[in-house]
Amino acid sequence: MESAIPAHLETPRTRHKRVPDDYQPPYPSFVARYKPAVSRVVMAYFGIQYHGEAPTAATGALKEIAGLFAGVGGPSHWDRAHYVDQAGRENIVSVAYWDDVARFDAWFAPAREAWTGRVREDLGTFIEVLRPAVARHETLFSSPDRPEGVAVIADGMSGEVQEHAYWGGMRDRIPLSQADAMAPGGAPELIRDGARLRVKGHDNLCLIRSGQDWSDTEPSERKLYLDDVEPVLREGMDFLRDDGLAIGCYANRYMRVLAADSVSEKSYGQSWWKSLAALERWAESHPTHVKIFGAAMKYLSTLGPSAKLRLYHEVTVAAADEQFFEYLNCHPKTGMLAAVETVGA
Amino acid sequence: MESAIPAHLETPRTRHKRVPDDYQPPYPSFVARYKPAVSRVVMAYFGIQYHGEAPTAATGALKEIAGLFAGVGGPSHWDRAHYVDQAGRENIVSVAYWDDVARFDAWFAPAREAWTGRVREDLGTFIEVLRPAVARHETLFSSPDRPEGVAVIADGMSGEVQEHAYWGGMRDRIPLSQADAMAPGGAPELIRDGARLRVKGHDNLCLIRSGQDWSDTEPSERKLYLDDVEPVLREGMDFLRDDGLAIGCYANRYMRVLAADSVSEKSYGQSWWKSLAALERWAESHPTHVKIFGAAMKYLSTLGPSAKLRLYHEVTVAAADEQFFEYLNCHPKTGMLAAVETVGA
Repeated sequence: MESAIPAHLETPRTRHKRVPDDYQPPYPSFVARYKPAVSRVVMAYFGIQYHGEAPTAATGALKEIAGLFAGVGGPSHWDRAHYVDQAGRENIVSVAYWDDVARFDAWFAPAREAWTGRVREDLGTFIEVLRPAVARHETLFSSPDRPEGVAVIADGMSGEVQEHAYWGGMRDRIPLSQADAMAPGGAPELIRDGARLRVKGHDNLCLIRSGQDWSDTEPSERKLYLDDVEPVLREGMDFLRDDGLAIGCYANRYMRVLAADSVSEKSYGQSWWKSLAALERWAESHPTHVKIFGAAMKYLSTLGPSAKLRLYHEVTVAAADEQFFEYLNCHPKTGMLAAVETVGA
Repeated sequence: MESAIPAHLETPRTRHKRVPDDYQPPYPSFVARYKPAVSRVVMAYFGIQYHGEAPTAATGALKEIAGLFAGVGGPSHWDRAHYVDQAGRENIVSVAYWDDVARFDAWFAPAREAWTGRVREDLGTFIEVLRPAVARHETLFSSPDRPEGVAVIADGMSGEVQEHAYWGGMRDRIPLSQADAMAPGGAPELIRDGARLRVKGHDNLCLIRSGQDWSDTEPSERKLYLDDVEPVLREGMDFLRDDGLAIGCYANRYMRVLAADSVSEKSYGQSWWKSLAALERWAESHPTHVKIFGAAMKYLSTLGPSAKLRLYHEVTVAAADEQFFEYLNCHPKTGMLAAVETVGA
């Protein structure tokens, strides 16, 4: 058993963990371990948005960003996913990860210009980037042998960690929690830069990517997941997408991961939150997530250790200067635009 | 909005609350307020135990304890409840509350001798007492107009309090949590005193009485409670009674409150725990309580503010010298006896 907080990020505590030192989680979980030399990671979401059939520009844009990713300074790993948003628009988001901010910065300046610097016909584009210090970030995996998202760029997985399977574990896994309440500071602001709309975030804004992978399930387990768990998860994701703002969820996307030529058996929810506390409150006590948690618990206690469903998440609580949000030709409720005053079309 | 911790019990903090200062609970709850002069409360459980039909001695014992309660120095309030335990024995427990330890002590010495000082034919008797400093104790009520249990002896109810409707609220309402992790110390020990068996508890042993009152519900709400919630609650109570020890629950009784001449529409779970942390873990993440929580949440969100079901609890984390457990002629898994090495019949 090891701490989710790596030794080199341990700091004197002014705040306590939520569990006693002799706490034993009831089942194993694992976290991504970066090389100690990694001080920051970068997670960058490059989206396209369109209505109905994909316009010609969509194919071009997807090829273009893949080409940029493959170029000098590109990410160590990226993946792509699709969802239909609350306005009925199709969105395809290519998510890329770096473990070297200098490399990212050099790569990003021209990539940004290419992506949100010119309007494409019938196509919106957007960029959402976090570049957190590693002390502002945590991950959690139900099994150690298939990293997803940011964990793919890590050095490897931990052994079994202590800080999980209780409410508050997410906070306790973030190294900054040792001495910081991570309270949110300020409100998001809209910045108009011609047709480009930027959102200036605020201190301790929070991002979660929470994933599901049922590709290894046998037919009976797959049916149980798709019939009993997935609809409840979808209902919760829809709630956050449509009504999340009142509880501090700025935006939510329930994404289906795209494989090379097809739709994969992987999904994830990606949501932006006013604070880690707001995310905690929803997860712990909102009826929509209590239902998700109950369905997942019933599923996992029915299947026991034979369950082949894989679950993971990554959570970041970002400083204001670690955030970047830019939207071009997107509808006014796209991503963090939904968190600021309504923008005219 | 006020703190559950009364002003005169505020101390410098070395430990943080689990929620930010601007946290707003999603619905109102209330706590009992004692006069500031009250430094300790006493909760004393006087039980009888028998097999099958009530023996003659049972009626006599119930009259006797009621008489003692009515005598000089007796409790400010008491109630009585019934349950069938894991050994199939009938148990009737008379629970009494004091807000003056000196008065209790003077009353208790002869009452104890009367209750567990002599064997009654075909009848077991037991006493379980806590006398906590008020800083080691908290209550919670869904409505402020019908106190139950220890709250009946309080000066009144608070206004709406902040520290509830999140996991960790129970701990945050206990004044001692401001600077103490309330970790358990030691293990319970059996002391044989002739036929009397005493259990010596340990520091920070925890008691919860968690009650339900459906007496005000209209037929449709009553049906919903009894059909959809009560069976799930009972299942969780049975789990704690039969299999709780492995997760730190020493004993659990799911009690039905007895009215003057009949069975009331009130129940409560009463359980002894190794620590507040063990109780927290069960409540937050054990499948049996997750089901209870899910059923209650579904019920309350279906009914909304029109729900007439009343819920309350009282929780104490007691110092070692605030505890007293004594059993005479009871089966060896009665109450805290279940927490110590098996005792020969």
